[in-house]
Amino acid sequence: MAKNPEKLWKTPPEEALRWVRGTDLTALDHSSTPGWAGKRADGERLLAARAPELADLQEQLFAHGRTGGDRSVLLVLQGLDTAGKGGIVRHVVGMVDPQGVQHRGFGVPTAEEQQHGYLWRIRNALPRPGYLGVFDRSHHEQVLVVRVNRLEPVKTWRKHFRELNDFEAEVAASGTLIVKVALFVSADEQKERLAERLERPDKHWKYDPGDIDVRSKLPEYLVAYQEMLDRTSTAVAPWYVVPANRKWYARLAVTELLTDALRSLDLGWPAATFDVEAEKARLAAS
Amino acid sequence: MAKNPEKLWKTPPEEALRWVRGTDLTALDHSSTPGWAGKRADGERLLAARAPELADLQEQLFAHGRTGGDRSVLLVLQGLDTAGKGGIVRHVVGMVDPQGVQHRGFGVPTAEEQQHGYLWRIRNALPRPGYLGVFDRSHHEQVLVVRVNRLEPVKTWRKHFRELNDFEAEVAASGTLIVKVALFVSADEQKERLAERLERPDKHWKYDPGDIDVRSKLPEYLVAYQEMLDRTSTAVAPWYVVPANRKWYARLAVTELLTDALRSLDLGWPAATFDVEAEKARLAAS
Repeated sequence: MAKNPEKLWKTPPEEALRWVRGTDLTALDHSSTPGWAGKRADGERLLAARAPELADLQEQLFAHGRTGGDRSVLLVLQGLDTAGKGGIVRHVVGMVDPQGVQHRGFGVPTAEEQQHGYLWRIRNALPRPGYLGVFDRSHHEQVLVVRVNRLEPVKTWRKHFRELNDFEAEVAASGTLIVKVALFVSADEQKERLAERLERPDKHWKYDPGDIDVRSKLPEYLVAYQEMLDRTSTAVAPWYVVPANRKWYARLAVTELLTDALRSLDLGWPAATFDVEAEKARLAAS
Repeated sequence: MAKNPEKLWKTPPEEALRWVRGTDLTALDHSSTPGWAGKRADGERLLAARAPELADLQEQLFAHGRTGGDRSVLLVLQGLDTAGKGGIVRHVVGMVDPQGVQHRGFGVPTAEEQQHGYLWRIRNALPRPGYLGVFDRSHHEQVLVVRVNRLEPVKTWRKHFRELNDFEAEVAASGTLIVKVALFVSADEQKERLAERLERPDKHWKYDPGDIDVRSKLPEYLVAYQEMLDRTSTAVAPWYVVPANRKWYARLAVTELLTDALRSLDLGWPAATFDVEAEKARLAAS
C-alpha cells in the first residue's frame, strides 16, 4: 500500500469527475476509477483517514451557522435504483455529526406535495444555515422520471431545465454551496444488486417490482440523464458523474468532493462573540 | 478486561436508571455508573460491539416504515449546558444510518414559533413512521427554563405537567416509542467543561455567556428537574436519569436504552410484499 494514499489521486476528483458538456454518457466505464491510481485497500485507507477532517469541517460549518453565518452545503444525490445513493448516505454522510445533517429523500410526491409546484417540497427541505443538506433524489427528477414516463407534456418538462438552473442560482446566492453527484452502475451490476435484494430477506424491503420497469427503460433514462447533465451542470452547481460499480470508489470520490467543497468555504472556527478573559473571570467566580 | 462485557451489567440499565418517583435528585452521584460493574475500557468495548446491532435494529425500523409500518422511536434528551447531549447525538445516534434519523434541537422559540402554542413546534418535529427522532431539549423545557425564569405565571406552567403527559400518551398511542433521558453532571464537572470551552478556540462557539446565569440558578433548576421527573415519568414515557460525569458511561447507557427500546418493538425484517420467485424470474428475463 502507498505511504500517503492521497497522492494516488493523479487528477483531483473534482476535476476528474466534473461533467463536461457533450461527453457521451453511454460510453462511461462503470468500473473505472477516474483520477485514482490506487487499489481498493488504498482507497479504503484514505476514506478512513478522511473521517476526522470531514467531521471537523462539518463542525466548523455548523459552528458558523450557530454564530450568525449564512453558509450551508447541499449534497444532491441522483442515480437509478441500486446506484448506491443509500450507501453514500450511510458511509459518507455517516462520518459527520448527525446534529448538523438535514437529510431528505424524495419519492413519488404525496397528495399534499402534488397540490404545489414541484419546487415546493424542495424549498421546504433546503438546508438551514450551518447545515449539511442531503437530497436523495431531487428536483432533477422533473426532467428524469417525469420525462421518461411522460407524466407531463414535452413542452412543459422542457421548461424545467431553465427553472432548475434559475432555482439553483438563487439557492447558491443565498449562501448554499451545491454539490451534485450522479451515480451510475452498469446494467449487469444493477442486475446483480437487484438479485441480491431478492435473495436476502433482510434486503427485500429495498426491492420494488417497479425497479424492473425502470430497468426496461434504461435507454430512455440515459437519454434523459445525458440531457440533464448537459443542461443543468452550471458554474454554481456543477454535476459530478461517478462510476459506481466499485462501491469503495464511489464512496471515496463523494467523500473527497464533499471535503473539498467544505474546504473551499475556508471557514475555520468562528471568533468568540464575547470577551473570553472576562468570561473566564465570571466562570471562576461562579 | 472481561470476556463478555455485556455481563458487567449487574442490573439492566433500563432498570438501574429508570426514575423512581420521589428519589432525591440532589443526592445523585454524578460520577457513579448505575448497574455497571466494569471499567471504562470494558464500557468502550461494549459500546463498539453494540454498533452493528443498533444499526441493524434501526434499519429494521426504517424498513418497516417503508413497507407500511407505523412504529417510530423518539429519543428525548434533556440536561443543562455541558451535560453531554451533543456528545450522545454524535457518538450514539452517529452509529446508525443518517437516512433514518430526524434530529431536532429546541432552543429559544423563534418569532414564528412564539405565535403558536409550545407544542406546535414539537408536533412538527415528531418522527415519521420508521424514523428515529432525536430531540435535543424538548417540550419539557416548558416546566424547566420557563419555570425557573418565570416566563409564565405559576398557574400557567403548572398546567403543563398534565398537558405533557396527555401529549406523550397521544404520541405513544400513534405508534411512537418514547425514550426520555435526562443527563446530569456535577457543578464542578460543569465548571471544568465550561472552562474547556473558554480555553479552546475550536470550542468557543459552544459557549454562551448565558451559561453562567443558568449555573447561578442551579438549585432552582434542580427543583424544576425534580418535579419534572416526578410528574412526567409515566408508564408510556418513563424518564431515565443518567449520571454523566463519565462520558463513556453516559454514552454506553443511552446506547443500551436505545438498543433495548428498539429490541422491544420486536420487528425483525418485514416480509416481502411481492412474490419473490416471480420477481426473480422477471429480473432474470430483464
